[in-house]
Amino acid sequence: MISVNRLSIEDARTLIEGARAKADEIGVPMCIAVTDDSGNMIAFERMNGGKAHSILVAQDKAFTAGAARKATHEYNAVNTPGNLAFGIHTEAGGHISTVGGGLPVLVGGECLGGIGASSGSPQQDMDVSQAGLDHFLTSL
Amino acid sequence: MISVNRLSIEDARTLIEGARAKADEIGVPMCIAVTDDSGNMIAFERMNGGKAHSILVAQDKAFTAGAARKATHEYNAVNTPGNLAFGIHTEAGGHISTVGGGLPVLVGGECLGGIGASSGSPQQDMDVSQAGLDHFLTSL
Amino acid sequence: MISVNRLSIEDARTLIEGARAKADEIGVPMCIAVTDDSGNMIAFERMNGGKAHSILVAQDKAFTAGAARKATHEYNAVNTPGNLAFGIHTEAGGHISTVGGGLPVLVGGECLGGIGASSGSPQQDMDVSQAGLDHFLTSL
Amino acid sequence: MISVNRLSIEDARTLIEGARAKADEIGVPMCIAVTDDSGNMIAFERMNGGKAHSILVAQDKAFTAGAARKATHEYNAVNTPGNLAFGIHTEAGGHISTVGGGLPVLVGGECLGGIGASSGSPQQDMDVSQAGLDHFLTSL
Repeated sequence: MISVNRLSIEDARTLIEGARAKADEIGVPMCIAVTDDSGNMIAFERMNGGKAHSILVAQDKAFTAGAARKATHEYNAVNTPGNLAFGIHTEAGGHISTVGGGLPVLVGGECLGGIGASSGSPQQDMDVSQAGLDHFLTSL
Repeated sequence: MISVNRLSIEDARTLIEGARAKADEIGVPMCIAVTDDSGNMIAFERMNGGKAHSILVAQDKAFTAGAARKATHEYNAVNTPGNLAFGIHTEAGGHISTVGGGLPVLVGGECLGGIGASSGSPQQDMDVSQAGLDHFLTSL
Repeated sequence: MISVNRLSIEDARTLIEGARAKADEIGVPMCIAVTDDSGNMIAFERMNGGKAHSILVAQDKAFTAGAARKATHEYNAVNTPGNLAFGIHTEAGGHISTVGGGLPVLVGGECLGGIGASSGSPQQDMDVSQAGLDHFLTSL
Repeated sequence: MISVNRLSIEDARTLIEGARAKADEIGVPMCIAVTDDSGNMIAFERMNGGKAHSILVAQDKAFTAGAARKATHEYNAVNTPGNLAFGIHTEAGGHISTVGGGLPVLVGGECLGGIGASSGSPQQDMDVSQAGLDHFLTSL
């Protein structure tokens, strides 16, 4: 038997709260998803005006970040033709996202889950996820 | 041009809040999803202890109820061999659920979305979704 | 943050070892899968002669049992036309199995994962999974 | 009638054993999959700490290597825009992997199956698969 730690629903709400505040600030309503360490969803919110396609994109970003313990923009950097990681974005049923906006939630070096945001530019999505992460880490 | 009404994220949170209270009361942590009138997800919460397979089941129930404007237990009643509706549960990529626990959110005869709960027995899931719906309707 | 317990790879090997011994005894080579509490695979073996379609069936049984914390034959019993659970077998992308042969791995009331066997009759698959579970529980 | 040779479950265990030893040595817990000459899975292990998304990635690498009789890093080299092989990574339902870490198991010029590893960098995954292959070939 092994024991693993993961985000609680309360943690997930805090992550979304921080992300939402940033999305409000920049005026881009977003879809925001939070997963556990296995990439399974814990919570999701589509802000009023969040884009419909982003419902799945936000989830894929959070899945990737939580399960792979890596930011999606880091995958993006190596997902270039000629790089040995190229093509990773279509793996796992296409659920691995290499679009910026997914961040692992690391606490003390341990990955407890992931957060993903979508509806803006990749940079805006990254900013929103980062704001959620910062808000959560500050709350600990 | 036509105009449609749908649940807001605030409405979705109210629906989940009511469902969660019932799930707490009966001691069965649940996955709870809320969709709009197109069956697209607005909000989702997996309570601590909610089952992993229920993440998708709750979404399918809410999708079915919101998009079809029909409770999943009503589909269940006609999804019997020999009935002309039999087999409906594998349509739409298998996303149509005929398992009890999904309810349309009807206001003034208009369907604004759907709520789906999963992790208990179908009857428990129905009770939890109903509690969410009641809580929402009372809040109006 | 919440903490959950799950099977280790060593546990998974013990489960498979017990299942394999039973499959050898009855002379039916099987596919045997073990998942964690989220339904994610930990280990898999296709015995020499195990059937090709069973590769996925065994995984779906183990996914269902581990994630839903319920034996697949228990789902089978309620997956009948007219029952409110009817149609559950096509949910979660069709990965929920209601064919006998998947068992949750419960230790002290806690579900640590699931085991699924496939290639024989459902009863043979159930016997093989049960033998794996018994072997594991005895080893604790 | 034709006769084909393929890896046995005993061979698959030997391949995984060698891969696991290398993963332990470099301190990166991995998901390791072994398939036969048809790309169908024979054995799989997720080491304690192996990443959740790698469960499917390792399988896709082993599928690709075993069925195509080609290392995934060789596909990677030709999966570049302008090359006639470009886009191969989304074929076969997205199961063809062009990420380094999948190797065919060739004995006497004949492909008996494939091995795939995932959770590290592509180079680490390649090293782990190669170690599994070397260990197996030495054991013959």
